[in-house]
Amino acid sequence: SFANLRIHPHGLVLVDLQSYNDHMKGREEVDQLLNKVEERMKELFHGNIKRVKRLPAILRGGVIDRYWPTADGRLVEYDIDEVVYDEDSPFQNIKILHSKQFGNILILSGDVNLAESDLAYTQAIMGSGKEDYTGKEVLILGGGDGGILYEIVKLKPKMVTMVASNIDQMVIDGCKKYMRKTCGDVLDNLKGECYQVLIEDCIPVLKRYAKEGRMFDYVINDLTAVPISTSPEEDSTWEFLRLILDLSMKVLKQDGKYFTQGNCINLTDALTLYEEQLSRLYCPVEFSKETVCVPSYMELWVFYTIWKKQTDV
Amino acid sequence: SFANLRIHPHGLVLVDLQSYNDHMKGREEVDQLLNKVEERMKELFHGNIKRVKRLPAILRGGVIDRYWPTADGRLVEYDIDEVVYDEDSPFQNIKILHSKQFGNILILSGDVNLAESDLAYTQAIMGSGKEDYTGKEVLILGGGDGGILYEIVKLKPKMVTMVASNIDQMVIDGCKKYMRKTCGDVLDNLKGECYQVLIEDCIPVLKRYAKEGRMFDYVINDLTAVPISTSPEEDSTWEFLRLILDLSMKVLKQDGKYFTQGNCINLTDALTLYEEQLSRLYCPVEFSKETVCVPSYMELWVFYTIWKKQTDV
Repeated sequence: SFANLRIHPHGLVLVDLQSYNDHMKGREEVDQLLNKVEERMKELFHGNIKRVKRLPAILRGGVIDRYWPTADGRLVEYDIDEVVYDEDSPFQNIKILHSKQFGNILILSGDVNLAESDLAYTQAIMGSGKEDYTGKEVLILGGGDGGILYEIVKLKPKMVTMVASNIDQMVIDGCKKYMRKTCGDVLDNLKGECYQVLIEDCIPVLKRYAKEGRMFDYVINDLTAVPISTSPEEDSTWEFLRLILDLSMKVLKQDGKYFTQGNCINLTDALTLYEEQLSRLYCPVEFSKETVCVPSYMELWVFYTIWKKQTDV
Repeated sequence: SFANLRIHPHGLVLVDLQSYNDHMKGREEVDQLLNKVEERMKELFHGNIKRVKRLPAILRGGVIDRYWPTADGRLVEYDIDEVVYDEDSPFQNIKILHSKQFGNILILSGDVNLAESDLAYTQAIMGSGKEDYTGKEVLILGGGDGGILYEIVKLKPKMVTMVASNIDQMVIDGCKKYMRKTCGDVLDNLKGECYQVLIEDCIPVLKRYAKEGRMFDYVINDLTAVPISTSPEEDSTWEFLRLILDLSMKVLKQDGKYFTQGNCINLTDALTLYEEQLSRLYCPVEFSKETVCVPSYMELWVFYTIWKKQTDV
């Protein structure tokens, strides 16, 4: 063990204790030691201490990593107790970690994507229970965890087409094995009675559908988070995002709806930029947004509903 | 600034960087510095590094404390940007801190109690929207933040009696000023058309009601968290808790319901002990429980519904 005490001006005293112990055995000992330090400090300062704060120990270097910062950069510790899946694809690192309270959590390149507890996410990106999917044509972009597909198929749509690219293949592989509370058996086959999964890049598929005049009642974009960059000029990601939006509007029926997730509520600049993109599409659109608490996110998340502006007849 | 590098056996290298800078100015500099350290390390180890993890900086000693561990002891950082209220009563420390996403948060002696975002808590402890409060007699124990009272009064009950002790007086004072999204104007007066707030210890009030034969359709216990101790023999808190439960059952109609919050879902031992207490009441009861995501808690929370066992006629 290794202790580090620093006395700063203005009366701030910082004590760091680093210990290499087996953490469960060490924790009690450490607590006792810190109790003694605190007591001794109170004596030394004659009880003249305004505030004492002790933070839980940070566990570093173990097999299990419990720290997955939020999209707005806050440090949060998860109750991870098992590494279920950990693979690198050519595109990203794919982890599925088990949380005691949230079940298995899908983490893509360090970002918490979805946990088995997060039906709230899937419901929000499907329109929060206000839509009737019966007999409808639905297009899902991305959605490799299978959550949206699984929930919509239950609602007896006419046909759901999910377009997941190569990037998603290993996500699908991991989720169909370890996220079954989220996806059920829907990813076991790429084709079902009322759905099909295309492993293709979504841009050419959208272009093909647009050319063929194929139209959908709902387009659900579950591709990736809104790029966090706040300099759209420097970033072609926004152009890519607009291209997807434009193509999606081309295959969306006049009274259809486009659903997508936005970002965490604190990244207001990124959200504003996203909304600015919406005014730059080939056709005028309107939108509404909703803030939802997704259990495993530890931050509130914004979801968008976008529709074609109805022209007065 | 002060850096600390430790090389442990089995190839673990820990780098700590402590800096006294103004944190917003310092953060970028620190990131650049850590980028350089990371690069240099990769060179030194010829790219032979299995894993690199950088945690967000922990801000200590500032006016604003952003770290409020969960009930199950995990380190979580909140997006606190303002201290709204900070007072010591003879019983506890009462803080109301502003979170960018959750609004004002009530923190009692370091425990996150309720945020303005947490209607989910209030709804859960009222029976999750499945009860009809119209024309009913309701007793609230505790509930100093006024959330339950405010929501029930909207539902046109016959009479709501809220019993808050001296312990809650300063909580009420703070909340009626700074938690108005939660309590509306309901705490501005201790008496309304269909409610009254008694500032009295709940035990004598319950005993009085029991003696008078006064009965309620709903008793909602929002007094305190289930004691976290897992040694009930050593702890009279469990006895106190049983006393409240027994007295509550005495004033609860035969077909009435008793609602309370339990604990975070991970403290399974404490939850089990609580459920054991339920089998030791003066009358046989049954219960159900529900797990709810309360936005500001950063952990799932268990709520109980308890009712008198119906005897077959």
